Amino acid sequence: MSGLVTLLTDFGTQDGFVAAMKGVILGIAPKAILVDACHDIERGDVEAASFVLGQYWQLFPRDTIHLAVVDPGVGGDRRAMVLEAAGRYVVAPDNGLVSRILLESDRWRSVEIARPEYVRRDPSSTFHGRDVFAPAAGHLAAGVPLKRLGPPIEEPARLRIEPPSRAPGEIKGRVAHVDRFGNLITDIPADWLPADCEVQVGSRRLTGLTGTYVDVDKGEVLALIGSLRTVEIAVRAGSAAEKLGVARGDPVVCRWAGSSEA
Amino acid sequence: MSGLVTLLTDFGTQDGFVAAMKGVILGIAPKAILVDACHDIERGDVEAASFVLGQYWQLFPRDTIHLAVVDPGVGGDRRAMVLEAAGRYVVAPDNGLVSRILLESDRWRSVEIARPEYVRRDPSSTFHGRDVFAPAAGHLAAGVPLKRLGPPIEEPARLRIEPPSRAPGEIKGRVAHVDRFGNLITDIPADWLPADCEVQVGSRRLTGLTGTYVDVDKGEVLALIGSLRTVEIAVRAGSAAEKLGVARGDPVVCRWAGSSEA
Amino acid sequence: MSGLVTLLTDFGTQDGFVAAMKGVILGIAPKAILVDACHDIERGDVEAASFVLGQYWQLFPRDTIHLAVVDPGVGGDRRAMVLEAAGRYVVAPDNGLVSRILLESDRWRSVEIARPEYVRRDPSSTFHGRDVFAPAAGHLAAGVPLKRLGPPIEEPARLRIEPPSRAPGEIKGRVAHVDRFGNLITDIPADWLPADCEVQVGSRRLTGLTGTYVDVDKGEVLALIGSLRTVEIAVRAGSAAEKLGVARGDPVVCRWAGSSEA
Repeated sequence: MSGLVTLLTDFGTQDGFVAAMKGVILGIAPKAILVDACHDIERGDVEAASFVLGQYWQLFPRDTIHLAVVDPGVGGDRRAMVLEAAGRYVVAPDNGLVSRILLESDRWRSVEIARPEYVRRDPSSTFHGRDVFAPAAGHLAAGVPLKRLGPPIEEPARLRIEPPSRAPGEIKGRVAHVDRFGNLITDIPADWLPADCEVQVGSRRLTGLTGTYVDVDKGEVLALIGSLRTVEIAVRAGSAAEKLGVARGDPVVCRWAGSSEA
Repeated sequence: MSGLVTLLTDFGTQDGFVAAMKGVILGIAPKAILVDACHDIERGDVEAASFVLGQYWQLFPRDTIHLAVVDPGVGGDRRAMVLEAAGRYVVAPDNGLVSRILLESDRWRSVEIARPEYVRRDPSSTFHGRDVFAPAAGHLAAGVPLKRLGPPIEEPARLRIEPPSRAPGEIKGRVAHVDRFGNLITDIPADWLPADCEVQVGSRRLTGLTGTYVDVDKGEVLALIGSLRTVEIAVRAGSAAEKLGVARGDPVVCRWAGSSEA
Repeated sequence: MSGLVTLLTDFGTQDGFVAAMKGVILGIAPKAILVDACHDIERGDVEAASFVLGQYWQLFPRDTIHLAVVDPGVGGDRRAMVLEAAGRYVVAPDNGLVSRILLESDRWRSVEIARPEYVRRDPSSTFHGRDVFAPAAGHLAAGVPLKRLGPPIEEPARLRIEPPSRAPGEIKGRVAHVDRFGNLITDIPADWLPADCEVQVGSRRLTGLTGTYVDVDKGEVLALIGSLRTVEIAVRAGSAAEKLGVARGDPVVCRWAGSSEA
């Protein structure tokens, strides 16, 4: 184990919730190295958490433990789990949070956090971040093997993520995430497209995948190849989400010469 | 010393105040391990800071140094202090910030940060986080014994925290903290109550301490046993503080069979 | 190398951008110690970033690497750079972000991040934080010498920062930064002034540099010597920026006996 533990939550940083989790981890694994990923996920937004986790999980070294707690069903019957994929570990509620990782991974294994010796005694029903997930992460960081935590989970919960649909000269996808800047990150791989395609989003049609923000004037809309190599719609120094009135899940269509409608 | 130093402030993370404190600590104790607790305490809200610190201070390993700077009286005549309790150290202004720790601790000791060799030369009158508290934390992390920092403080400042009052079939307490989600965390220990008690808060009467959030519909109010094992009033996927118009300090009354009013 | 890497960005903490940068650094330099400086710089506000970086860069130990990514021109023709001054390293876009450090430093050297082996292959055009700056910081932390990264930069971009102007009995300066609390931090060194000077800001004239916040009543305006030893205008438990309607760049004039206008 590298001892690296990253933390993603929707707890914010005005209460002691994140600190409590950190204390529990370090109490179990004093040599763990804690790395804050993000704590300002919208409350209970498992879909955003899943996307955001997808942005970084594989950039960390092998053996990194990614603790991810966005858990609107805490205390209910959703399971607590650890997923291992590509040598990284994700400790999370089994509520779909790991969906994007499963999509990207051919091989993975998963266990339920079930053995009582690896969670806090008499856990609360409202704060499994401190009482279940942090202890499990701590024990993993301290060297406990994955399979010791509990029985395998064969089918982790998955968010319904429809892949973009392809037709000759046309791809229909969706806005997969809206970032802090209001950029609309779609699920359409740029590699599937010619550079001179037309991108339709909301009532707007944009021509071509412009290089980057500074290629247009401030306040102008552009389509470009984003940092995940998918189509992204942005406004230079502004918010595309606001300007276009578009939100996560909304359709985005790319067309090019040969498209039926072109 | 473990070298662990946690940081709680009301400085936010849009300026360089927190980073300045971190630089000073690492300048004195290069091997210190910094852990962000929270930086979004409401400006000058010593009461919230005291509560939040109480949520995590004892979860960290022994010898951890908790640096806590919410300091509306900076530059005035309040003292700078270090408290040791249960083997943890708290470096803070002597303004009541450590009140919750004192409440929970039978034994503690405290010193004033007074010796000039352990603070920055020519300290500013507005930023003791950088000039007094961070240096003291750094020197502690580097192994300087507590008593070297200055003379003992016999009576640290304490916030006036009234305990809940008990009568047969009735407990009167208060909202001790409102968290980011708008949950109303009270000071009433759940262990003092039968599970079928009635909880009155604002104009609302709630029956029973429901297990957890998912036991009610979205938007509904419930009373439950919170993560500190006190009574908590919450709204599933919503804010109880907003929905009920209740704030910190407001009364909460629990009654059960045998109560005079029941 | 100490392995210390601080991070300043305008990315916030609701997406995975900061975490992606951290993953890249640790992938290259597994022993690097990451320290969050601040992630809530106003979007694209290079001037604020430059000021904030100035608040802490020199407080960290020698060999610290300060990674600072506020980069509205990403993907355009601004260069990527590393600056070394006073034994600290700053990895940043060459857009003026290091201006305050250059102002404070007699000696410095700078190189362009140009050698492809020290950046990510096939870098995106929108996220050089992950693809250019984080890798460069990682390689520096892993021991790669500065000059290996690319050719020298003789003249890094600088923000136009006018120094305050002095006349007998009068100094004219500016609001250099407005902090989270609404304090107006000016560029006027307190050491240039007598304590009984008059400070004019907006339509307000303040007499004397009062010691600290608690010397006035709540809600009152005062001028004092701030933590950078410059004149600061504050409102006790309030926002001077709001109360006075003053913003960054606005003029501040200090006068004292002998001033032509006094």
